[in-house]
Amino acid sequence: MGCAPLAYLLWSEIMNYAPSNPDWKNRDRFVLSNGHACALQYAMLHLVGYTVSLEDCMNFRQLKSKTPGHPECFATPGVEVCTGPLGQGISNAVGLAIAEKHLSHHYSPQVFSNYTYVICGDGCLQEGISSEASSLAGHLGLGKLIVLYDDNSITIDGPTSLSFTEDVGKRYEAYGWHVVAVDDVVNGLDNLRAAIAEAQAIDDKPSLIKVKTIIGYGSQKQGSEKTHGAPLGSDDVSFVKNKLGLDPTQAFQVDDDVRAFWADVTKAREARMKEWERIYSQFASSHPEVFKEIERRFAGECLNEEELIALLPKFEYGKDKDKATRQFSEQCLNALAVILPEVIGGSADLTPSNLTALKCSGDFQKNSPSGRYLRFGVREHGMAAICNGLYAYGGFRPFCATFLNFAGYALGAIRLSALSRFGVIYIMTHDSIGLGEDGPTHQPIEMLESLRAMPNINVFRPADSNEVVAAYVSAIRNRITPTVICCSRMPVTSLQASCAKKACLGAYIVLDNVEPQLILLGTGSEVNFCVQAAKVLVEQHGLSVRVVSMPCQEIFLQQPIEYQKDVLPGDIPTLSVEPSSNHGWHRFAHQSICMTTYGLSAPYDALLEHFGFSTANVIDVALLLLHFYKNRPVPNLRDRPDSGSKGFDNGLHH
Amino acid sequence: MGCAPLAYLLWSEIMNYAPSNPDWKNRDRFVLSNGHACALQYAMLHLVGYTVSLEDCMNFRQLKSKTPGHPECFATPGVEVCTGPLGQGISNAVGLAIAEKHLSHHYSPQVFSNYTYVICGDGCLQEGISSEASSLAGHLGLGKLIVLYDDNSITIDGPTSLSFTEDVGKRYEAYGWHVVAVDDVVNGLDNLRAAIAEAQAIDDKPSLIKVKTIIGYGSQKQGSEKTHGAPLGSDDVSFVKNKLGLDPTQAFQVDDDVRAFWADVTKAREARMKEWERIYSQFASSHPEVFKEIERRFAGECLNEEELIALLPKFEYGKDKDKATRQFSEQCLNALAVILPEVIGGSADLTPSNLTALKCSGDFQKNSPSGRYLRFGVREHGMAAICNGLYAYGGFRPFCATFLNFAGYALGAIRLSALSRFGVIYIMTHDSIGLGEDGPTHQPIEMLESLRAMPNINVFRPADSNEVVAAYVSAIRNRITPTVICCSRMPVTSLQASCAKKACLGAYIVLDNVEPQLILLGTGSEVNFCVQAAKVLVEQHGLSVRVVSMPCQEIFLQQPIEYQKDVLPGDIPTLSVEPSSNHGWHRFAHQSICMTTYGLSAPYDALLEHFGFSTANVIDVALLLLHFYKNRPVPNLRDRPDSGSKGFDNGLHH
Repeated sequence: MGCAPLAYLLWSEIMNYAPSNPDWKNRDRFVLSNGHACALQYAMLHLVGYTVSLEDCMNFRQLKSKTPGHPECFATPGVEVCTGPLGQGISNAVGLAIAEKHLSHHYSPQVFSNYTYVICGDGCLQEGISSEASSLAGHLGLGKLIVLYDDNSITIDGPTSLSFTEDVGKRYEAYGWHVVAVDDVVNGLDNLRAAIAEAQAIDDKPSLIKVKTIIGYGSQKQGSEKTHGAPLGSDDVSFVKNKLGLDPTQAFQVDDDVRAFWADVTKAREARMKEWERIYSQFASSHPEVFKEIERRFAGECLNEEELIALLPKFEYGKDKDKATRQFSEQCLNALAVILPEVIGGSADLTPSNLTALKCSGDFQKNSPSGRYLRFGVREHGMAAICNGLYAYGGFRPFCATFLNFAGYALGAIRLSALSRFGVIYIMTHDSIGLGEDGPTHQPIEMLESLRAMPNINVFRPADSNEVVAAYVSAIRNRITPTVICCSRMPVTSLQASCAKKACLGAYIVLDNVEPQLILLGTGSEVNFCVQAAKVLVEQHGLSVRVVSMPCQEIFLQQPIEYQKDVLPGDIPTLSVEPSSNHGWHRFAHQSICMTTYGLSAPYDALLEHFGFSTANVIDVALLLLHFYKNRPVPNLRDRPDSGSKGFDNGLHH
Repeated sequence: MGCAPLAYLLWSEIMNYAPSNPDWKNRDRFVLSNGHACALQYAMLHLVGYTVSLEDCMNFRQLKSKTPGHPECFATPGVEVCTGPLGQGISNAVGLAIAEKHLSHHYSPQVFSNYTYVICGDGCLQEGISSEASSLAGHLGLGKLIVLYDDNSITIDGPTSLSFTEDVGKRYEAYGWHVVAVDDVVNGLDNLRAAIAEAQAIDDKPSLIKVKTIIGYGSQKQGSEKTHGAPLGSDDVSFVKNKLGLDPTQAFQVDDDVRAFWADVTKAREARMKEWERIYSQFASSHPEVFKEIERRFAGECLNEEELIALLPKFEYGKDKDKATRQFSEQCLNALAVILPEVIGGSADLTPSNLTALKCSGDFQKNSPSGRYLRFGVREHGMAAICNGLYAYGGFRPFCATFLNFAGYALGAIRLSALSRFGVIYIMTHDSIGLGEDGPTHQPIEMLESLRAMPNINVFRPADSNEVVAAYVSAIRNRITPTVICCSRMPVTSLQASCAKKACLGAYIVLDNVEPQLILLGTGSEVNFCVQAAKVLVEQHGLSVRVVSMPCQEIFLQQPIEYQKDVLPGDIPTLSVEPSSNHGWHRFAHQSICMTTYGLSAPYDALLEHFGFSTANVIDVALLLLHFYKNRPVPNLRDRPDSGSKGFDNGLHH
């Protein structure tokens, strides 16, 4: 209610949009960063003619409605990003603004010239993620990003004086933003109108407009935290309706003159889109190849699996010298970036470690917006949220990189990639204790399981060059599922039988023998220990052993059950080998060589040896496993009924 | 090398410390927030006489050395907190400074009057976590917190001009800090000395001293990012030694005059501790009860399990009305806070939702430092790091709270609680889709598995009042293991057979029948569906059914194997019920009613029904499970060898 004047002005005068085509490429992007205020956004979407009906508004927060409790981009036309987790929306907006600036310079300002508007509250500005993204936005001089800060002095706990007394405006000036204050939006909108015009005119700085508002304006509880989350109550609703000249006996009622006003507004906006379409079609005639590329990018079309594999680097077993999988990742990323201009991204200040520099492109900076390499700085959470914004704009396949362990800093935003169905590519190197000397603060233990437990995200831990190729092919092909590519710091020996095409199935046999008595199941840099151990077990112990490489659990579990059981029957003693928590491995393996503690600081070979990741230890444990089941039945781990879970109807089963 | 003048001044003139007693209560706390520079800290600890030998220094980054690649508080005497993950150290320091301010006011400024000093770099100040903690530090006016910002203009990617061009000083002024710049520490230390004296004199604001330094000072590569992580190389080491007047043929060589200088320094510092001990012993005489309490707090002594259970609220089955477990949590937390003054904490602006307000104490604010309730604001990551700092000070059992899903914002710091062996208590409410209308952005799915996959952290999801008591008892009793207490927003029906003492075993039988044919295994608010389903399966289907409640997997797995097999034999068809990812449940259950997708926005009862968390669905799935195993062997899930992992020697096995 406090923000209503802001929304009124944005939708009636400021923003370009076309309810008939929510995907209009050059629409102004609007982000309600304080997503809990979404009733306001739904009301606006309804008034201006998006397919959000009055009935939808009445079904606010009900099962499968278009009006969930926080904005969801896949649920409601006109909603750009999922907001609610505080700080995410404003950080997404930085990505949306980068997207516009890049496309405008790379293609044409005639085609891409939109603004990004944000409404955010105190909560968003307290979150560290917004500090990270805002600092970078100032550095990059994103002049078309305009944030309206709903400065209502109230958070859930009470007045902001309890915990938030900093000078926000001064902080944003320090970030290099243009900051202006508007003290009143109750007695007229001229000041706000002027502030927005000023912000629009400043093209080398993002703008923060600090708008003093009154939470729950018009109600008896106005100005109190009691209006933050809880409903007003019917008495107070009547009170406020009376005060504002509305009929208190009517609910969900829009007067005809209001309808007529907004119909005119919408008509004018649709006309602007038509004018843009005219210009775009001229552009298409004069630049047919570029037009085709833009359309392809926004349609998300790409090469198929075979074509992509063919275009990515080939590695030959025995010919190339051992390299870290992060080095193969560097080659694959660079090969893709050359052919796919939609690939944009960077690292959280770990470029020389993550090996994500793009040889085909310079940095995206304030004065070089055609560049595709982003210097995110040491800002993991902001980085992931910015990538979500880039994806949300359309036409991009963003990537970002840090050490796997520091995915934990960015988890809030990674989760939103997955929930929002944004195919962001996460390149996470230094993926185990194998990173060595940096020690336990840097060595991931639980992170693989954290990510695997998340719905709609594919976690790859490739064993060698061919599996890195598979990870990138899968990442590019899966547009609505983000992919995490976990890479080693240390060199790996290529597997004789590794295969990009087979690795795209999630798991496959890399070494086999007739009627195997034992399966060694590994991922990433540890598969080679399994292969070496298997050879010894076959040659010296006369055993029949299979080795399975499982670069991606999620994708393996999507294969036909026949394939799954061909690879892992379930009733052959199976030993998994991964330097990580083994929670999820109980599904596939009878025993695990895993990490049950944090790591240590030491050279990687000493660490792997110490924690049991060696050929010798795989052999020892495998023999103990076989001994254990010598005189008792082997439980068939895969002979279980399917999950008894319901609710498979929201379009994403994994 | 650029920071060496800072370290020299701090240890030789500024700080109070006593190498003979690294745990001296009133020592100044020092945090190297840019932990990758730890070689400097180890050198200082060696010079001033901590038990860090030259040999330890030579074993830098080697297996089990006292000098790991980043500072670890449990590995090296004189190191206060684990740093390295950027932004954590400076945020821990805010907690350390809160601790001093509270104890000083609560007990006596004669006993507690130390400063907290931090050295941090650009990376720490780019991270959102430091923004959160620094904003709060300014709000709280922590005058004894002094941060030396190593402003060397270099990060790993290159010059800070790539990504970090904000005005850091102005930003900290906006936070309410005292900010001063020192441009040169190469040609003399008077400016720095004066700046520190000025900072010490300002008692109502934390201080940021921006010190221009030169990375890799003295070397041929000085001022370049090439000196950030990589060794200098022997040529350059000789070059710098020559330049600084050292013998380039000598390594790990400390001249006698240097030794003598530091011996004098240390002697003076030890004398100050002796003087403090004299004052403290006078205090002990005049305030014997307070002295006893301080000593007990710093020794981490507490009541035993029985005593704690006796002191916590009793709930009687059938007598009390149904409440949410967050409401029982409120009662337990408040009961503990009354008897344990070391309990201090708060919520990330969700006090009315987390129900963490302390009735026995007001807020800790700038002008009320005796208060024990912290208004963290919407700053989850900073909150957790501040709690780590409070714990690190000694004498505190900090708690903090948010929605379980937003543990994802704080995971970087939660992990450091676990790694550092800091028994922080995390109160995480709204622990499933059962939170209802807020929708999938707020509903945790993978978070329980994320936390369970982390070593050294106990995750409780209590089913009712008695289990909430158990969670708090366990949290208080486990001093070196953090505990996460996951609570429901919705009311639960108390279990007839629930029992705090048994719940302290991690899992126990809440309903049993002879020779059970089926086990229903639940956690939290869903155990009651299992109990209701079991009754129907017994009465209407003539089945023999057991129900197991498993509030804490980690603790159950620490019980003797006989107890574990008594509760869960492994070869009885077992159905787990938890609205969460089921990765870890494959260890215990043949089938799971779980979440395989994100949630939805709707009233909680509609959601639970929709996703299959209902008595009726538990019955249906249980019957299907029994049908599945009618004509085939039931795999014994617990009949497996132990984990084949090594490396159990770092003192923490879980």
